[in-house]
Amino acid sequence: MKPLQIALLGAGTVASGVVKVLARNQEELQRRAGRGIALAAIAARNPDKARAALGDALPITTDFMALATRPDIDIVVELMGGISPARELVLAAIAAGKHVVTANKALLAIHGNEIFAAAQAKGVIVAFEAAVAGGIPIIKAVREGLAGNRIEWIAGIINGTTNFILSEMRDKGLDFATVLKQAQALGYAEADPTFDIEGVDAAHKATILCAIAFGVPVQFDKAYVEGITALQAADIRYAEQLGYRIKLLGITKNTGEGIELRVHPTLIPATRLIANVEGAMNAVVVQGDAVGPTLYYGKGAGSEPTASAVIADLVDVTRLHTADPEHRVPHLAFQPDAMSDLPILPMDQVVTAYYLRLRVADQTGVLADLTRILADEGISIDGLIQREAGEGEHQTDLIILTHDTVEAHMNAAIGRMQTLPSVHAPIVRIRKEELR
Amino acid sequence: MKPLQIALLGAGTVASGVVKVLARNQEELQRRAGRGIALAAIAARNPDKARAALGDALPITTDFMALATRPDIDIVVELMGGISPARELVLAAIAAGKHVVTANKALLAIHGNEIFAAAQAKGVIVAFEAAVAGGIPIIKAVREGLAGNRIEWIAGIINGTTNFILSEMRDKGLDFATVLKQAQALGYAEADPTFDIEGVDAAHKATILCAIAFGVPVQFDKAYVEGITALQAADIRYAEQLGYRIKLLGITKNTGEGIELRVHPTLIPATRLIANVEGAMNAVVVQGDAVGPTLYYGKGAGSEPTASAVIADLVDVTRLHTADPEHRVPHLAFQPDAMSDLPILPMDQVVTAYYLRLRVADQTGVLADLTRILADEGISIDGLIQREAGEGEHQTDLIILTHDTVEAHMNAAIGRMQTLPSVHAPIVRIRKEELR
Repeated sequence: MKPLQIALLGAGTVASGVVKVLARNQEELQRRAGRGIALAAIAARNPDKARAALGDALPITTDFMALATRPDIDIVVELMGGISPARELVLAAIAAGKHVVTANKALLAIHGNEIFAAAQAKGVIVAFEAAVAGGIPIIKAVREGLAGNRIEWIAGIINGTTNFILSEMRDKGLDFATVLKQAQALGYAEADPTFDIEGVDAAHKATILCAIAFGVPVQFDKAYVEGITALQAADIRYAEQLGYRIKLLGITKNTGEGIELRVHPTLIPATRLIANVEGAMNAVVVQGDAVGPTLYYGKGAGSEPTASAVIADLVDVTRLHTADPEHRVPHLAFQPDAMSDLPILPMDQVVTAYYLRLRVADQTGVLADLTRILADEGISIDGLIQREAGEGEHQTDLIILTHDTVEAHMNAAIGRMQTLPSVHAPIVRIRKEELR
Repeated sequence: MKPLQIALLGAGTVASGVVKVLARNQEELQRRAGRGIALAAIAARNPDKARAALGDALPITTDFMALATRPDIDIVVELMGGISPARELVLAAIAAGKHVVTANKALLAIHGNEIFAAAQAKGVIVAFEAAVAGGIPIIKAVREGLAGNRIEWIAGIINGTTNFILSEMRDKGLDFATVLKQAQALGYAEADPTFDIEGVDAAHKATILCAIAFGVPVQFDKAYVEGITALQAADIRYAEQLGYRIKLLGITKNTGEGIELRVHPTLIPATRLIANVEGAMNAVVVQGDAVGPTLYYGKGAGSEPTASAVIADLVDVTRLHTADPEHRVPHLAFQPDAMSDLPILPMDQVVTAYYLRLRVADQTGVLADLTRILADEGISIDGLIQREAGEGEHQTDLIILTHDTVEAHMNAAIGRMQTLPSVHAPIVRIRKEELR
């Protein structure tokens, strides 16, 4: 049988991984897929640069649209990133009857509903294992491997850059800005790291996980997104003393009333396996009603790890593209006519526990005032440490851990506590999850 | 569309989980699969007991063969365990054109080649996610999620009973026999725990992982199997002091010359994520050439965790059974006409590192004799600790860690060392893997 013809859109890091791994594992891939997978051509903005990176065995074009719709192409692999022109190219490829494989989480988190609807209408597959957690087959695990479960929640370290920074901050006791510079020097953070450190990249991925876990449309605009730029070394240290690690988690949870979708720094018990995921590695915990907790760990980025996911999708499409479209795995795990209309909950309705750090006057009555406010708001305290004030100091750090409470109540309590004259600096609030 | 009709063979723990979860998640399963999945009937040896466990909403029969081949049944779920009559029933179901879902690792490890060939010839699917690591979707991960990789090795904690025992031995400093009794009292070990503690169960699962990782037939008879019954508390303690944990691992590795397939207690660095998998949990590390290391963690046994895997298979079969058989995922990950004839290597050709504990006379020259023998056999030493002999003691423990070496050389070295008059007890040898 003629090999399936693949077009690559983009010639960056991941594309070079795809080219390399496809060539290296060609024989084994054929044995798996039962049919050859052949790279037909690559579209690149800068053909000379592309040729230098990928060699000149393959035709390289600058006409992305012509390649995406070329009649002899079976599968278009979109590895450009960004929204435009990726969106137009993917939609054009679908309209031309091509199957699409993409690693583009931003595109799917924002325009996924449009893209999946177009693919559904045309009877083609859009596969996106590489869009979340790189080489970890987490899309497949949630969509197929755990299909017997009602998923209760997912919590994941799904951005390697921020996990690298947090690991270094903890290991070496350094502050955020210092570690960020090191991470940039080492290539773990980009020159413009905004999307990573502000949590946007993680929120794109959490949005996709949310959709396939709960059968809702992708709704990136409803995600709560908080990055790690405000994290201080002191809080990492206090968390450690209390038996917790701070990780940037993407969390999505079905509460029955609605769905939580949020990215923020999170205290998690140091004994949890995911708390021990260090450096640029990713890991995702999925809690199903039947299976309980499961965890998936691996490299979340990089040339060959991401290529691993892209090629798994190519093999999947090769194996399954002849199935009638009614009997394939649905793009978002649930049949398109059976999506849920459960709303994404606004952040002030989210229920979680909290770590609070207050800089307070070292005088009697302060604790009484604070605990009174918490009690008024119906917030119960799980633990509390007050550092003894140093010699000659008149202020001290007070750390409060709370039980689960509604975020709106916590906002109200923090607002009130902040106005107390004995509270001397902005109150630090970090959410805390037991993950069980 | 008429729901797919399911027959359950067996009415034990897993069957009751399947019945419960199918009922509880019915609506969600329909939304995922696009078609109903209906339990038609159950075959049980003792219908009264089955009725007590599963309720009487479903017809219960004692005629397994009639149910396995009944014309209205689409999928036969075999949950009986054991070889016979499970094998005959599965083959009869296949011959009758039924798809089969099974959790039976012993059956597949021993008769998988026959069963998959029959299924292939008949164009039906045999799905077996539940056969390895319970609720963890490891079969799907290796067979599909990592299809872009050449798998280099897999190492897994794939028997919960023995991991529970080893965790307790380490935590509490107790010996094997004591912990085994506790595990039996707690239900973590069966009344006859032989298959678990002797490593047989883990070897069944490793055999299946080996086949889908490397595209070779299942070859349980070639597996090296060593359990945990001889493990002593002292070795767990020494390993700890050296920065290692001892886990019962199922290991399979492609060396290029052949394939290693072995189950034995193994020292692994305490800093590895898998070293921190405690209690009855399972975890599997898969090393792919493109993705690097990935890890999959979850409950490896139990009613609903195993049911989770069985139902995922039911959803898979529901989604994919209409695809033409040439374009489904092959049972053993590779196309049946493209299997590899790489041999399973005999244990004495396996390459690994070693932990040795010797009870030696506390006198000069002993170490020289021992290290001379190791050097003669081409074995290089990675580390060595000699406990100081206590007051009045004339013997002491000597611990040697070696670099990688061929098992045959180690056998020769141990044989020679054992004959030295200064070596006072049987030499303890535990294999050691860095897992990187």
